[in-house]
Amino acid sequence: MSGNTFGTIFKLTTFGESHGVALGAIVDGCPPNIPLVVEDIQEELDRRKPGQSRYVTQRKEDDSVEILSGVFEGKTTGTPIGLVIKNKDQKSKDYENVKDKFRPGHADYTYQQKYGIRDYRGGGRASARETAMRVAGGAIAKKILATLGVNISAGVVQIGDIRADKVSLADSANNDFSFVDMDKIDELETFFQALIKDQDSVGAKILVRINGLMPGVGSPVFSKLDAELAKAMMGVNAVKAVEIGAGANVVSMRGSGNRDLMVKAGFLSNNSGGILGGISNGEDIDIYVSLKPTSSISQKTTTVNKDNEEVDLQVKGRHDPCVGLRAAPILEAMAALCILDQVLLDKGQCFNVDRDS
Amino acid sequence: MSGNTFGTIFKLTTFGESHGVALGAIVDGCPPNIPLVVEDIQEELDRRKPGQSRYVTQRKEDDSVEILSGVFEGKTTGTPIGLVIKNKDQKSKDYENVKDKFRPGHADYTYQQKYGIRDYRGGGRASARETAMRVAGGAIAKKILATLGVNISAGVVQIGDIRADKVSLADSANNDFSFVDMDKIDELETFFQALIKDQDSVGAKILVRINGLMPGVGSPVFSKLDAELAKAMMGVNAVKAVEIGAGANVVSMRGSGNRDLMVKAGFLSNNSGGILGGISNGEDIDIYVSLKPTSSISQKTTTVNKDNEEVDLQVKGRHDPCVGLRAAPILEAMAALCILDQVLLDKGQCFNVDRDS
Amino acid sequence: MSGNTFGTIFKLTTFGESHGVALGAIVDGCPPNIPLVVEDIQEELDRRKPGQSRYVTQRKEDDSVEILSGVFEGKTTGTPIGLVIKNKDQKSKDYENVKDKFRPGHADYTYQQKYGIRDYRGGGRASARETAMRVAGGAIAKKILATLGVNISAGVVQIGDIRADKVSLADSANNDFSFVDMDKIDELETFFQALIKDQDSVGAKILVRINGLMPGVGSPVFSKLDAELAKAMMGVNAVKAVEIGAGANVVSMRGSGNRDLMVKAGFLSNNSGGILGGISNGEDIDIYVSLKPTSSISQKTTTVNKDNEEVDLQVKGRHDPCVGLRAAPILEAMAALCILDQVLLDKGQCFNVDRDS
Amino acid sequence: MSGNTFGTIFKLTTFGESHGVALGAIVDGCPPNIPLVVEDIQEELDRRKPGQSRYVTQRKEDDSVEILSGVFEGKTTGTPIGLVIKNKDQKSKDYENVKDKFRPGHADYTYQQKYGIRDYRGGGRASARETAMRVAGGAIAKKILATLGVNISAGVVQIGDIRADKVSLADSANNDFSFVDMDKIDELETFFQALIKDQDSVGAKILVRINGLMPGVGSPVFSKLDAELAKAMMGVNAVKAVEIGAGANVVSMRGSGNRDLMVKAGFLSNNSGGILGGISNGEDIDIYVSLKPTSSISQKTTTVNKDNEEVDLQVKGRHDPCVGLRAAPILEAMAALCILDQVLLDKGQCFNVDRDS
Repeated sequence: MSGNTFGTIFKLTTFGESHGVALGAIVDGCPPNIPLVVEDIQEELDRRKPGQSRYVTQRKEDDSVEILSGVFEGKTTGTPIGLVIKNKDQKSKDYENVKDKFRPGHADYTYQQKYGIRDYRGGGRASARETAMRVAGGAIAKKILATLGVNISAGVVQIGDIRADKVSLADSANNDFSFVDMDKIDELETFFQALIKDQDSVGAKILVRINGLMPGVGSPVFSKLDAELAKAMMGVNAVKAVEIGAGANVVSMRGSGNRDLMVKAGFLSNNSGGILGGISNGEDIDIYVSLKPTSSISQKTTTVNKDNEEVDLQVKGRHDPCVGLRAAPILEAMAALCILDQVLLDKGQCFNVDRDS
Repeated sequence: MSGNTFGTIFKLTTFGESHGVALGAIVDGCPPNIPLVVEDIQEELDRRKPGQSRYVTQRKEDDSVEILSGVFEGKTTGTPIGLVIKNKDQKSKDYENVKDKFRPGHADYTYQQKYGIRDYRGGGRASARETAMRVAGGAIAKKILATLGVNISAGVVQIGDIRADKVSLADSANNDFSFVDMDKIDELETFFQALIKDQDSVGAKILVRINGLMPGVGSPVFSKLDAELAKAMMGVNAVKAVEIGAGANVVSMRGSGNRDLMVKAGFLSNNSGGILGGISNGEDIDIYVSLKPTSSISQKTTTVNKDNEEVDLQVKGRHDPCVGLRAAPILEAMAALCILDQVLLDKGQCFNVDRDS
Repeated sequence: MSGNTFGTIFKLTTFGESHGVALGAIVDGCPPNIPLVVEDIQEELDRRKPGQSRYVTQRKEDDSVEILSGVFEGKTTGTPIGLVIKNKDQKSKDYENVKDKFRPGHADYTYQQKYGIRDYRGGGRASARETAMRVAGGAIAKKILATLGVNISAGVVQIGDIRADKVSLADSANNDFSFVDMDKIDELETFFQALIKDQDSVGAKILVRINGLMPGVGSPVFSKLDAELAKAMMGVNAVKAVEIGAGANVVSMRGSGNRDLMVKAGFLSNNSGGILGGISNGEDIDIYVSLKPTSSISQKTTTVNKDNEEVDLQVKGRHDPCVGLRAAPILEAMAALCILDQVLLDKGQCFNVDRDS
Repeated sequence: MSGNTFGTIFKLTTFGESHGVALGAIVDGCPPNIPLVVEDIQEELDRRKPGQSRYVTQRKEDDSVEILSGVFEGKTTGTPIGLVIKNKDQKSKDYENVKDKFRPGHADYTYQQKYGIRDYRGGGRASARETAMRVAGGAIAKKILATLGVNISAGVVQIGDIRADKVSLADSANNDFSFVDMDKIDELETFFQALIKDQDSVGAKILVRINGLMPGVGSPVFSKLDAELAKAMMGVNAVKAVEIGAGANVVSMRGSGNRDLMVKAGFLSNNSGGILGGISNGEDIDIYVSLKPTSSISQKTTTVNKDNEEVDLQVKGRHDPCVGLRAAPILEAMAALCILDQVLLDKGQCFNVDRDS
């Protein structure tokens, strides 16, 4: 468990540093006979890639992915799918000045402590650029889940203190903030202009929704479906909180109001967020994910270097004022990888169970 | 990954239903030569066991644990440690009336869907009684971590709308609510008397703190230390949210205020909660865990049965008005299991790295 | 991977030393709704247990197994099955004299090296007594496989230089040597009488046959079905060689004679032993397993002790002159555990494939 | 466990088909700070690559490997190492005529059964070409093991009925047959000329020797060091038998002759092959691996096609008359991957044990 593999049957293993030769991945355990073309993956990558609006980093990467194996005559063969994206717009020189300095809020110090060596260029392996391969692997998972009626979508529900009053995940594709409430866009525009002027950054909360999952998926005890999803989400860069259904609001709730009653037609509410006892109940699975503000901001500050000397620091490079804006496709991908793996595990152990649906 | 094993090197596997013959566990991968007697484990179990105050379930279980293997002449041998607790005070008859009914907020419906069969007595495997074996395994992990200078403690910081104004984890042992602020105990007493009168239950938020962990522990990308901790916590019954450090508050924060600056003497703040890029930075690891209110309350309600008919339901049995009150030792145990495993994994891959500490 | 768990979906984890309190196991990932009573397991254990004829150890253990969880109203529930056997006839005093000595051919020296501590009584965890729990777990796997038309049997095909001229696995139940050729029994009787007189022991070769496995089971590359079976078999105490189909004889064969031709009715020969490219082909899977002679013999010898001093050694205790005689149920159990797990993994990844059979 | 990953801490995951775009691999869990240049890997690949003598396939692949990540300024960083080899000399047309036919002795039939689809070109994923990436990953493992004093070598000890009378693993680099006895080379030349004339192929037995491994490595019970090595070896294409130390010869041996006695200076013999109770004892680990004759020979034969019709078959393409001749570097690589992973696991669990060596 060196950290670069996710899943048990459907497994994604990734490699690649921000300013290295390439990013890549192996998707193993993919069901065979699934139609798959490179465009299926590229489409999801294009949702994540930088440089698309003035509110995200201006690094120009076309993130063009190539399928190296595992697909034959347009279909998956069940053998591992090799994927690669060549890095292109590496401005490694931007990082020369932070070579020996530990940028606050970043993994510079901890990588140095753990490994005794680190690729300092653009954060190396700790860069959010690594998430491109999660999106690529997730695109395949999403495609398979769609054949089972499962759809996953995500959108931003809060930025700073600006909260969505209504949730339209579809609308999140229609604005520069991946926001789920179009009535807040003007307010967000104003907010970001001030933020950028301040050379500062801000956090965001994302809703990830899994729709159409059959009841019965997930494993009890340590590998509850919500536990696996929490791991999947918390493993994404900058994530500091994961909530399921009513989330942290349950602290203030009473049992009489929190428990979701059942009638013939189904559940009357969804405080559980679609999971009971670690197993899906057929309702929407709603996950709320909180991302911290980007640590790399242009404001000058001080920090320490490798020799534990206090030094001035000004982070150059191209950074997002709000990493949450680009997080939706990444979190969707992680949800897809997690859910598909759990579906396949369930089809293994419980192959002999007839379900209601 | 059928859900009943936690860990990669130091592994806990558990079994047992609420009203079955026994609960049990196997701790595998335990470092050898660690002094261990049954009292080390019993002491932690006694913190969790029911029937200790009027605010928790009155089921009487002495939860007396037996060590069946893996310890020789008072020391661990490196071979698997078998543990067992016999069940004693099973009042299975209490559950006859819910045999075919799905209790709202419980796993009855989802277990039935997943497996096509379920042990309905006391929730079977889905009962919180299962967590006794987590506490037993965690007791061993805690003992080993203590030899490495790592200590783990937990306490309740919020119940309903009552929030601690100050945090003293030591004080959580000095009141009936495991609460970290002794000034709030009177208010809590009043609150609980009304709650019990209402036959209702309430949620709670727990702080779990890991102190003394050396920097460098954790694995990047999918198995970040916070990701593994999130899984560990979210896998505990009733948990609906996991937050690290500043947690969901980061959404409203700016980068300039959120990133923890470093000076010679160390970090100036701990919004990160002791983890950067998935790796420990030497600061306290602070985890906030939100537990939902107990779903089993004595109020009458309606639900559906196996045949999807709407039926009356009154849950009997003995239940906690706030499961959070007994959660601290369980969450500490999960944190210990998670951290020790990551420490051992790090000693494996990075055996050749000299650390600052 | 501390060694005490086998399998990925259907997982057996075991504990217990030869002269400890008890042996035990957890079977996790068991498909639900499988009829299971304790007699199903006891029956297999009785095939393995010591003291049944004058050619095996006279230790008296009734090996009475108890089911502690995971079975409800006579059926598996999909939750972990806890199993325990109490040790009874421990004559630990027999081992006092070898407390600090390394018995040749045993794991005494290597356990001491690895762990710096060892339970010397009866070999502790390294005792073949550990295999009882493999048999218990395998009994459950066998029962499930039988519902899928898969049957596993084993018998001794060679002892010393006495080779079976014909193979009747059914006949192996009809003699004291688990031998597959009844015409050799007289010769074996004579051989063993001389062997026991010599206070010596002898090796054996076992054929394990898996019949009725559908084609398509197994995973390519590192986890080929034959690779997993080789691990399963080689992990049994005393095993020194594993051969599939034509086995080591392939070295002398030519491709024209070795490759199994196919006609409409199926394969014309079975040199492959039922596996091609790591995947089952529907033919019998034939595994030949070679076990070394028991290292504990009554002959006096010399060895070294913990302080690396040369010392006299006479091993007391009760030992089998040929461990192969009791190996059939153990090897069958390992084959069953391995095959069932692979079947379930296949049902996971390849859930959408229609097979010929 | 979809089969394309090997290891727990030090993990190799591979992809790629014989006639696809590329072969590739990810090495995860690599210890940091290990000097590594592409030549370290290329050197091992060059030992395996085809086209080097008239006794191996004439396919021309330079097998030029590229490192895509995980190495910075000439050292490993502890992050995953991405590797890729582009395929060049794919003569896929050679395989058009076997598109729907199941070649005897190959995985054509079983892949079709398992996945319902297969890349028929050159055997697709089932081609021995896949092993290039094992060699690449193994080269890294070997380099790290060398720093720990562990060296691995292999050579052919038997081809057909020609057996080595003496074993010089060093000499195996000095002849076209990787043979360990130079006195047999003339005989082998004559044998192969006749074999090629007959359009036939032959099996081989390889000795893999692990020298310098410290005592204490390996995990008891299911994951014994010999069990993991057996899996590692049996997972290599064409392998049908794995023997440790005295191997299948133990069947004819007596305990008095088989058990290796210990004196002050160490073990007096090595029938155990360096492993006792699944744990290394400091002696050479000797593994004997039997490979079947190449199934693809030019002789005409009959077989069945997808529609189960009997059809003529003549396999074209370029094939080795004895796959054993190129097996040494592959088996060495698998041994290295296995041993290094076990060493790191041991450093994890038993970090607190002081060893004799």
